[in-house]
Amino acid sequence: MLSLSKATTIIDAALEKARAENFAPLAVAVLDAGGHLVAYKREDGAGIVRFDIAYGKAWGSLGMGFGSRELTERAEKNPTFIGVLSTVSGGRMVPSPGGVLIQDDSCTVVGAVGISGDIGGNDEICAVAGIEAAGFAAATGVPK
Amino acid sequence: MLSLSKATTIIDAALEKARAENFAPLAVAVLDAGGHLVAYKREDGAGIVRFDIAYGKAWGSLGMGFGSRELTERAEKNPTFIGVLSTVSGGRMVPSPGGVLIQDDSCTVVGAVGISGDIGGNDEICAVAGIEAAGFAAATGVPK
Amino acid sequence: MLSLSKATTIIDAALEKARAENFAPLAVAVLDAGGHLVAYKREDGAGIVRFDIAYGKAWGSLGMGFGSRELTERAEKNPTFIGVLSTVSGGRMVPSPGGVLIQDDSCTVVGAVGISGDIGGNDEICAVAGIEAAGFAAATGVPK
Amino acid sequence: MLSLSKATTIIDAALEKARAENFAPLAVAVLDAGGHLVAYKREDGAGIVRFDIAYGKAWGSLGMGFGSRELTERAEKNPTFIGVLSTVSGGRMVPSPGGVLIQDDSCTVVGAVGISGDIGGNDEICAVAGIEAAGFAAATGVPK
Repeated sequence: MLSLSKATTIIDAALEKARAENFAPLAVAVLDAGGHLVAYKREDGAGIVRFDIAYGKAWGSLGMGFGSRELTERAEKNPTFIGVLSTVSGGRMVPSPGGVLIQDDSCTVVGAVGISGDIGGNDEICAVAGIEAAGFAAATGVPK
Repeated sequence: MLSLSKATTIIDAALEKARAENFAPLAVAVLDAGGHLVAYKREDGAGIVRFDIAYGKAWGSLGMGFGSRELTERAEKNPTFIGVLSTVSGGRMVPSPGGVLIQDDSCTVVGAVGISGDIGGNDEICAVAGIEAAGFAAATGVPK
Repeated sequence: MLSLSKATTIIDAALEKARAENFAPLAVAVLDAGGHLVAYKREDGAGIVRFDIAYGKAWGSLGMGFGSRELTERAEKNPTFIGVLSTVSGGRMVPSPGGVLIQDDSCTVVGAVGISGDIGGNDEICAVAGIEAAGFAAATGVPK
Repeated sequence: MLSLSKATTIIDAALEKARAENFAPLAVAVLDAGGHLVAYKREDGAGIVRFDIAYGKAWGSLGMGFGSRELTERAEKNPTFIGVLSTVSGGRMVPSPGGVLIQDDSCTVVGAVGISGDIGGNDEICAVAGIEAAGFAAATGVPK
């Protein structure tokens, strides 16, 4: 289970990383294993669609069982299928890095982080930093 | 403008109040004046529809221009119309106390808080506590 | 056909009436006979759901073939059916006065006005004022 | 804040430009910073999907934080991702020029204009003309 306490640690550490790196303003969503929002913060200046993108990166990672970097790579090979998956999921699958699975000590997926605001690679750096600060393992692609 | 810093203060003070009163686990959403999510926390044990209810209480307050306690009273007088409003807004209007407008010193509405988890009256107590802790005025009904 | 020029006259005259009567801030939508938006103005201070309500009053009037005052009366007699109609139309039917059909000299319905912001009766007064200022006939219920 | 008065000036100046240039009939939408419609006009002869395109150009500009010309360029490089963004946003992101951010003297984004009817480049010319006539700065891409 992913507690609110852990989710808050993830978000705050992710945003601390973003400010240290001087990234663009971010939106950070933490979802439980059922795809439901546990906690969310949107930095001042982030656009109004950032929630939907952050949520979609996290939800899609849970939906497929791997981080959104893997989905990004599959999208390059098979764009049509990813377009269909996007529609199937009601827009909750975003093929861009920044959706990262959260695994506990027993390799169980307990949730996912989704971040949007900077380029996908930078969003992902912050997601990993947040997950690791909370004592979890981060899976940006297919989990071990 | 409603900063992330202020929104975080609102949520944390609302949850502090909830724990002091021993209320049921809460979901707390803070929206900006345009109805977009700025910050959110869901306490451990709150059910999976709590986000949508909390969000709808806040969004509906912004949509109509008064706190959801006023909408609750109107719903008792005219249930059909409130049912229609729910559909009009895509489910984003919830006629139960706990949606409270946030006003700054010049009486401008800068956002809204929506809380769900306990009975509406208790949700509202926490919303007001959070808003006031952040130095804003809370409007549970028609604002002054 | 309802020209942009006529639609603009309707909106501006409706808002002139609202200011003369000191009504609450209004949202005014003018739709053509196909239910498509021709022109719209939202006064400063009107809430964020007012577009959807104004549009729904006008669309529903065109949908049923009578002004929304008639829909309001039917809603009192048969609330369940109105709830279903609301869902059928995707929330585009609002049983409250303020949706008024626009008829030309030959009694053809060329469009509809929908207004939201004050109580339904006041919204309707402004809609009628706007329609008549543009040289059309206004039908608040079943047209002649 | 973007007042109705300023929004009306933007639309009327945009349409004046369109008539001076003899462009195709246009639909012009002005949104506030939260993505809500403030004013709209559709010239006679513009098709029935023009509202949705104009609205989507403006909404998507606010959603991403840059004018739709930038989104157009990104779409050429990564069409799959833009298709997904379209779904994520419920169709409210249109990668074609004509969505332009409105900035005030302090570089704050106070809203966006979206225009559809002619080719994107011509739509954009009218959006910029309207914004500047109202005393604001126009950002067709990433704002300064």
